[in-house]
Amino acid sequence: MFPDYDVIVVGAGHAGCEAAAAAANLGSRVLLVTMNMQVIAQMSCNPAMGGIAKGQIVREIDAMGGYSGIVSDKSMIQFRMLNKSKGPAMWSPRTQNDRMLFAATWREMLENTKNVDFYQDMVRSIIIKDNKATGVITGLGHEIKAKAVVVTSGTFLNGVIHIGEKRFGGGRVAEKAATGITEQLVELGFESDRLKTGTPPRVDGRSLDYSKMEEQKGDDEIVGFSYKDVQKPTEQRSCWITYTNQQVHDILKTGFDRSPMYTGRIEGVGPRYCPSIEDKINRFAERDRHQLFIEPEGWNTVEIYVNGFSTSLPEDVQYKALQTVPGFENVRMFRPGYAIEYDYFPPTQLSHALETKLISNLFFAGQINGTTGYEEAACQGLMAGINAHQKVRELEPVILKRSDAYIGVLIDDLISKGTEEPYRMFTSRAEFRTLLRQDNADLRLTELSYRLGLADQDRMDRVIEKRNGTEKIKSILKELSLDPSEADKFLQEKNSAPLPHKQKTIQVLLRPNISLPDMMDQLPTIKNALTGFTRDTIEQAEIQIKYDVYIEKEKEIVKRMSQLEDLMIPENFDYGRVAALSNEALTKFKKIRPRTLGQASRISGVNPSDVQILMVFMGR
Amino acid sequence: MFPDYDVIVVGAGHAGCEAAAAAANLGSRVLLVTMNMQVIAQMSCNPAMGGIAKGQIVREIDAMGGYSGIVSDKSMIQFRMLNKSKGPAMWSPRTQNDRMLFAATWREMLENTKNVDFYQDMVRSIIIKDNKATGVITGLGHEIKAKAVVVTSGTFLNGVIHIGEKRFGGGRVAEKAATGITEQLVELGFESDRLKTGTPPRVDGRSLDYSKMEEQKGDDEIVGFSYKDVQKPTEQRSCWITYTNQQVHDILKTGFDRSPMYTGRIEGVGPRYCPSIEDKINRFAERDRHQLFIEPEGWNTVEIYVNGFSTSLPEDVQYKALQTVPGFENVRMFRPGYAIEYDYFPPTQLSHALETKLISNLFFAGQINGTTGYEEAACQGLMAGINAHQKVRELEPVILKRSDAYIGVLIDDLISKGTEEPYRMFTSRAEFRTLLRQDNADLRLTELSYRLGLADQDRMDRVIEKRNGTEKIKSILKELSLDPSEADKFLQEKNSAPLPHKQKTIQVLLRPNISLPDMMDQLPTIKNALTGFTRDTIEQAEIQIKYDVYIEKEKEIVKRMSQLEDLMIPENFDYGRVAALSNEALTKFKKIRPRTLGQASRISGVNPSDVQILMVFMGR
Ligand SMILES: Cc1cc2nc3c(=O)[nH]c(=O)nc-3n(C[C@H](O)[C@H](O)[C@H](O)COP(=O)(O)OP(=O)(O)OC[C@H]3O[C@@H](n4cnc5c(N)ncnc54)[C@H](O)[C@@H]3O)c2cc1C
Ligand SMILES: Cc1cc2nc3c(=O)[nH]c(=O)nc-3n(C[C@H](O)[C@H](O)[C@H](O)COP(=O)(O)OP(=O)(O)OC[C@H]3O[C@@H](n4cnc5c(N)ncnc54)[C@H](O)[C@@H]3O)c2cc1C
Repeated sequence: MFPDYDVIVVGAGHAGCEAAAAAANLGSRVLLVTMNMQVIAQMSCNPAMGGIAKGQIVREIDAMGGYSGIVSDKSMIQFRMLNKSKGPAMWSPRTQNDRMLFAATWREMLENTKNVDFYQDMVRSIIIKDNKATGVITGLGHEIKAKAVVVTSGTFLNGVIHIGEKRFGGGRVAEKAATGITEQLVELGFESDRLKTGTPPRVDGRSLDYSKMEEQKGDDEIVGFSYKDVQKPTEQRSCWITYTNQQVHDILKTGFDRSPMYTGRIEGVGPRYCPSIEDKINRFAERDRHQLFIEPEGWNTVEIYVNGFSTSLPEDVQYKALQTVPGFENVRMFRPGYAIEYDYFPPTQLSHALETKLISNLFFAGQINGTTGYEEAACQGLMAGINAHQKVRELEPVILKRSDAYIGVLIDDLISKGTEEPYRMFTSRAEFRTLLRQDNADLRLTELSYRLGLADQDRMDRVIEKRNGTEKIKSILKELSLDPSEADKFLQEKNSAPLPHKQKTIQVLLRPNISLPDMMDQLPTIKNALTGFTRDTIEQAEIQIKYDVYIEKEKEIVKRMSQLEDLMIPENFDYGRVAALSNEALTKFKKIRPRTLGQASRISGVNPSDVQILMVFMGR
Repeated sequence: MFPDYDVIVVGAGHAGCEAAAAAANLGSRVLLVTMNMQVIAQMSCNPAMGGIAKGQIVREIDAMGGYSGIVSDKSMIQFRMLNKSKGPAMWSPRTQNDRMLFAATWREMLENTKNVDFYQDMVRSIIIKDNKATGVITGLGHEIKAKAVVVTSGTFLNGVIHIGEKRFGGGRVAEKAATGITEQLVELGFESDRLKTGTPPRVDGRSLDYSKMEEQKGDDEIVGFSYKDVQKPTEQRSCWITYTNQQVHDILKTGFDRSPMYTGRIEGVGPRYCPSIEDKINRFAERDRHQLFIEPEGWNTVEIYVNGFSTSLPEDVQYKALQTVPGFENVRMFRPGYAIEYDYFPPTQLSHALETKLISNLFFAGQINGTTGYEEAACQGLMAGINAHQKVRELEPVILKRSDAYIGVLIDDLISKGTEEPYRMFTSRAEFRTLLRQDNADLRLTELSYRLGLADQDRMDRVIEKRNGTEKIKSILKELSLDPSEADKFLQEKNSAPLPHKQKTIQVLLRPNISLPDMMDQLPTIKNALTGFTRDTIEQAEIQIKYDVYIEKEKEIVKRMSQLEDLMIPENFDYGRVAALSNEALTKFKKIRPRTLGQASRISGVNPSDVQILMVFMGR
């Protein structure tokens, strides 16, 4: 019934969709098997993409030729660039999305991708021959052959849903859980464990009193995620901010004795950084209020997502507590919040290519690796899709370094450190965050991806244009002098000292409070010199100029570190022979088998002395 | 957590959505409880509305102020008026729909309906006090109070899905079944039984060779369902026709020994008139081919619905057979066909208001009553919603007569005859089908609905305008003479005899082959006389003129029949006292408790002599 595929992707969540698209666009023949074709690329939780550190990831996915950025742009109902008041390393794009449109757009893009076939069924096991994945077996009993398999099962493996004292099986509410894969892989020697995550109640927007909340509008300028030209909406919808209070907390506490988390019914560890509201009032007992974001679920629906109120308390407690939130006095609930527990496979069992170490040609991506979040899932899917294709074609794996991308940081963290709680990206996880900005993901990644054959010509052309334009602007600003007669009034307005004499523009631009758009606005010389450059290129040049010192410093560190990073450890290196290693390092090295001394140094429990011993032993 | 409602509707399928809308628009406070708010108003099977007899029902729903017609119009990708070559009683509008858009539009309209609240949960039992429904209890344990409850559980009650030898629980594929209600009601003395229905596989449109099929385009003129002004699409998508052949049948037969139908694993009776392909080749063994309609699932998807190929054979057999259908040589399957078995409640347990006889204020509508089809479900939902509201307000029930509407025929058939197989509407079920046309549903029903407070002013105004316009045109055509000098050339072209002398236009119009639009096109006198009338009104006048004889004849029969129909049987009438009744009639009368002698006469197994005896006994 099925041809032989190059790559089978199991699950059409964010990870699976990106994996299918990437492998197919590289030329692999791909089958995407998922339990319900009606719910491809669902946003299981909040109707939003991006945000701090996550927005950078979406731009990186986009720069590589993935689809998440385009889909988010096409389905956005609001855009905001977060942290605009901080340095550009912190700027983080975020969209509020129409949930239905997001899923429909993903499906449409996938359907229009050559080489992607679809099939609705549950995969219950992987076909394995000589420790190599060669296909899947489905619930209906089909054996489908492939040269590589990417598993992206999200929260579905043995998923159990909890609301107060109620518990029932499911991968999301009203959807069935998936079974079989965990049991098979554990049998084969894989380690698996339980994690949990939660989602807040959804309410009827018509029952809220927005006059008691603060409005949060979208930005005037919609930047978006994609480096391609994607049509942006002409209107936006607002979100709203309100707060819990002591009364809300007191009511919530009345449910603790029936909470699945406090009665021990949930064993899985939850996301520390996306805590439930009961977690928040427990852990931050000193705080008398928590912020809630009231987010519309789409253009035309009255359904509202209560961001910040994730909970698995009994539903009547959820409801009573909500009613005491300002603006929620007459709230009507559509669906309760709930928690879900599911199987994940500690990611130290993977290589940097996201291939499992035990079974070759078997890849894992997304929530199955212990992460949380659409963006984290999507970027792993992209990389697993790329690497499954590379493997099938017997090509080198594609591995992004920690200094290349947040994606590199994420995968390296997972592989080297594992995770015992749902892993989510933060800017603080990236040691080179001045380099890994949202504005330069294209400059960092598109060329690599283009060479692979993934990013298309249009993307590459845009990058070349931006790169050349940026250099040109920089050299113009280096050459062009500003005359005090022209500049001083402007400088005074900006509380900046007048020019002592003619000065190169670049010097003036380095002053705090002085921005290039402002200069263009007020100084005809600058305006004339820069006419014709795009907004994006001008911004890029300005960032490179203003943050040059920091950027160069980080580049220097990267260089130094990369010496460690370049020291490859032979694949079959026998750590047992290195007598002086600490016990912990020995165990971890054997388990994780780091590829480089750099990676070895980042493994938790490994001391610098262990790395030095290793280095000496390897003859350096 | 919940206020007290007037009406709770259980299930948001076609029946439940219409029920909620109708009760709410009449002013009841309504809660719509459904298992998954993500899948409101799903088209479980084919992405189309209307067709023969069903199209008439959709127009009736629309004329009453229901939403199905508007939703279908807004989400159509193709429109056809079927049977246009036959008399107007047979004309049947049909839309092909975008499945996702259909559901999204329904949800949006419901969300914009005042008085409708939503809640996502499974209802597991009805709260009953003194034989009266007073609310529901949900899976999460909530007791929600209401003055009336409408159950529209579709195929979900104890649903079991079959594909070949596989079987698993579910209300639709990948959705959970509902449990609890059947068991509770059977405990209370309700009868319940099993029915089954099936759906064909979905395939990848990119894998089909359309050059081997016949194209079926939409009509040039898009009439649509709604009598309101709904924006119609400017483009349409085509369907395609192909055929099975002997080879296809032979392959299908190889699966019969693994078919759940032939091995006895399915006990429920299937729809005789929507048979599975295995049924067709079995029952019509002499036929060497069956027609298949290849229908797109939406504007932007490559998914295709293979209409006519409903099957629960093992999937490999489905696939192999499909491959031998012309145009399907390289077919890729997205999802297999399957059959589903579910509980229904034989509808003889209901009154004409769709209220159960055992428990007052409890209403059933849709597939739960043993019907099949969206239209059949939707119209019952509409009537149950209206009657639940009426009951709550202590108003008379609203009952459409067999001569009022197909809806009346459907409900009377169900209530009086019951059904042992899925009931679907046909024109042949209506004895007054010349009266029950798609073009006059508004004239038949809107005023009634307007008086109830359901159809809005705009609808009523349009009806008055159409009614007046029609009368005006009829009198114009009665007065206006046609001169041979003007008419003869036209008549000759139409192969019609020349005029012997001046004649009234109406006389000429009564000739076969002569239509009013043609006359307007070619005869300036007519054109001038009718300028300013709408297409709809002109068509109405023409139909009333041309079919006057038939219409009047049927009206006469209705009148005669209504004498029987008007003979009410007292509610507590003691049939035991009527000694001369046949045994069968006695049993049926006691069970069904007909409201009128007319209804009594239509009960299966009841002879005219039984009715006469009854009539005599009642003193007539
Ligand atoms: C209740 C809930 C709350 C959440 N809360 C948060 C939050 O607060 N913050 C946050 O960042 N993230 C949250 N998430 C997580 C977020 O939804 C996921 O990180 C993201 O969706 C993971 O993407 P994925 O592609 O790995 O898996 P998913 O999006 O879960 O998709 C998995 C897909 O695989 C399919 N599938 C699974 N197993 C099989 C199989 N055996 N055969 C065939 N198909 C299969 C499923 O049908 C599904 O389509 C939450 C998720 C849930 C369910
Ligand atoms: C596989 C399949 C094949 C079909 N084939 C055909 C066909 O060939 N021809 C044809 O005319 N028709 C066919 N149908 C039938 C058609 O889909 C139905 O007639 C129509 O959808 C019935 O509408 P409904 O409103 O009665 O129920 P449904 O559309 O089934 O909707 C029922 C709704 O109620 C909800 N629900 C059920 N129980 C509960 C509960 N206890 N608590 C809360 N919510 C609940 C469900 O979640 C669902 O939303 C088929 C249906 C299926 C599933």
